[in-house]
Amino acid sequence: MDTIKDLGEFGLIEKIKNLFEQPKDALGIGDDCAVIPIYDKNILVTVDTLIENIHFFSNHPMDKLAYKAININISDIVACGGIPRWAFLSLSLNPEMKTSSLEMFLYNLQINFSKNNIFLLGGNTTKDDKLSINITLIGETDKPILRSSAKENQDVYVTGKIGCAACGFWALKNNVTESNECLERFLAPKARIDLIDKIKPYATAMIDVSDGLLQDAIHICTSSNIGMNIFLENINLCKSNHLSDIDKITLGEDYELLFCAEKKYRNSILKIGDIKLIGQTNNSKKLTIYDNDNIVVPKQYGFTHF
Amino acid sequence: MDTIKDLGEFGLIEKIKNLFEQPKDALGIGDDCAVIPIYDKNILVTVDTLIENIHFFSNHPMDKLAYKAININISDIVACGGIPRWAFLSLSLNPEMKTSSLEMFLYNLQINFSKNNIFLLGGNTTKDDKLSINITLIGETDKPILRSSAKENQDVYVTGKIGCAACGFWALKNNVTESNECLERFLAPKARIDLIDKIKPYATAMIDVSDGLLQDAIHICTSSNIGMNIFLENINLCKSNHLSDIDKITLGEDYELLFCAEKKYRNSILKIGDIKLIGQTNNSKKLTIYDNDNIVVPKQYGFTHF
Repeated sequence: MDTIKDLGEFGLIEKIKNLFEQPKDALGIGDDCAVIPIYDKNILVTVDTLIENIHFFSNHPMDKLAYKAININISDIVACGGIPRWAFLSLSLNPEMKTSSLEMFLYNLQINFSKNNIFLLGGNTTKDDKLSINITLIGETDKPILRSSAKENQDVYVTGKIGCAACGFWALKNNVTESNECLERFLAPKARIDLIDKIKPYATAMIDVSDGLLQDAIHICTSSNIGMNIFLENINLCKSNHLSDIDKITLGEDYELLFCAEKKYRNSILKIGDIKLIGQTNNSKKLTIYDNDNIVVPKQYGFTHF
Repeated sequence: MDTIKDLGEFGLIEKIKNLFEQPKDALGIGDDCAVIPIYDKNILVTVDTLIENIHFFSNHPMDKLAYKAININISDIVACGGIPRWAFLSLSLNPEMKTSSLEMFLYNLQINFSKNNIFLLGGNTTKDDKLSINITLIGETDKPILRSSAKENQDVYVTGKIGCAACGFWALKNNVTESNECLERFLAPKARIDLIDKIKPYATAMIDVSDGLLQDAIHICTSSNIGMNIFLENINLCKSNHLSDIDKITLGEDYELLFCAEKKYRNSILKIGDIKLIGQTNNSKKLTIYDNDNIVVPKQYGFTHF
């Protein structure tokens, strides 16, 4: 544990969680958003960072980067059952960056803010040797949907198609051709704000699939103190040949919604569309992945930074 | 205006301000904090970034860096007349960073959070080639004190000693000896949370001195649509010989409070202690600096990033 690399991302988060006392009147570290109740409102807060050559390549089109920067934050608010309201933008910029390039970013960010009724209320700008974008997004919800409220014997669902973003990233990294769908899903992922109102009445627990479907399923299991069976053949997997099925459910960046619901709502939920029933919760306290009756044990469950 | 360097920091902020529509029910870009009214509460939000080799040197002691990281944010909340409540920490870390070094940072951050009743509710961690710290701090106030509410014919005050942090920075950069006071003021600046309750009943407008006293005075003038005379000989200036008096009031990082108040409160305000009456507001819409009856026109008014 000499270096951050040895400690690992989740080791680091665990260290921070243990060190900083959490308040009794708000929900802090451990979900997609923090939840601060103010009278009858629940204020949701999330923050995400995108760094050049870490999270995106230098040639990432600026309009798509703007779309991505706000959507990965909207996704966290949506995963807690909220709507986005106010944003704060921290930009680190290389002084030699072309103004026209930054204008393209800002112009498209503004379009996406406007479309989602988000107001930019502040932030800061600073010099650096490369571009970093850090957005704090504040939202509201009448009823927060947390990772920690799943119960055993419930259904597990995921929205949309899984693995496209990872295939898009892989293709760009290795400079090979890939479908527009996969490239787009990596370059400009879309938060599932379109589905939230329909899912919200049923979801007992929810998370957005950013670390990888399996890792995020484990987050629900750990937070809710339950177990889960997931059936690989039921997942709407990306058709690209560039990555294995297991890679597609571990490499993340899908920004789809993974949620649990009581079995009695199965018909209503499947009628919504673009949602797959992929598993069930149980009391095993572990995640088991089945591929047509065979148990699969992946080498890794998701993406970590260190 | 081809590059960000040509556009300049305030040109960039102006561009962002013009592009993004501001809401009617909240105060956005243009003050130390954003103000979001929720029923009878005013939620204050500020965000600040510290980047290795841009804002601090690689050998910045980790305990002092933690102190600085939270105090520069507390300073913004205090400058709006609020108290800090909840924080979000984004850390970019080199995977080879020593865990013991990060632990020193986190441990001291926790001590400062605890001392100020601030709860860490979330954030994110990511890989980078160097250390960056981005903190979003949320506070509360019954009555926000803004930059925009100064009137002409009021007194102008500043707390504490001005220029020490700039002298400390200069000494560290040029590897020369400097007083502990100056070094400490750069390495671990202290937000004037100790004075806020005493100043708040009188302050009509307020700002924290982070960009440089003159630049921040101009921010009040522009926002309030007034002018200001400032008398150099009345400022409690740092005694170090490393920088000129003008440099001391332009290079910033003091994190003292600059505020305006009605003249009738002069005796009450000066009785608080550690506060100097340094000028008066007027209707000239410009800042004039006097040095013993001579007008001084500085080459620059404050620090800008680009």
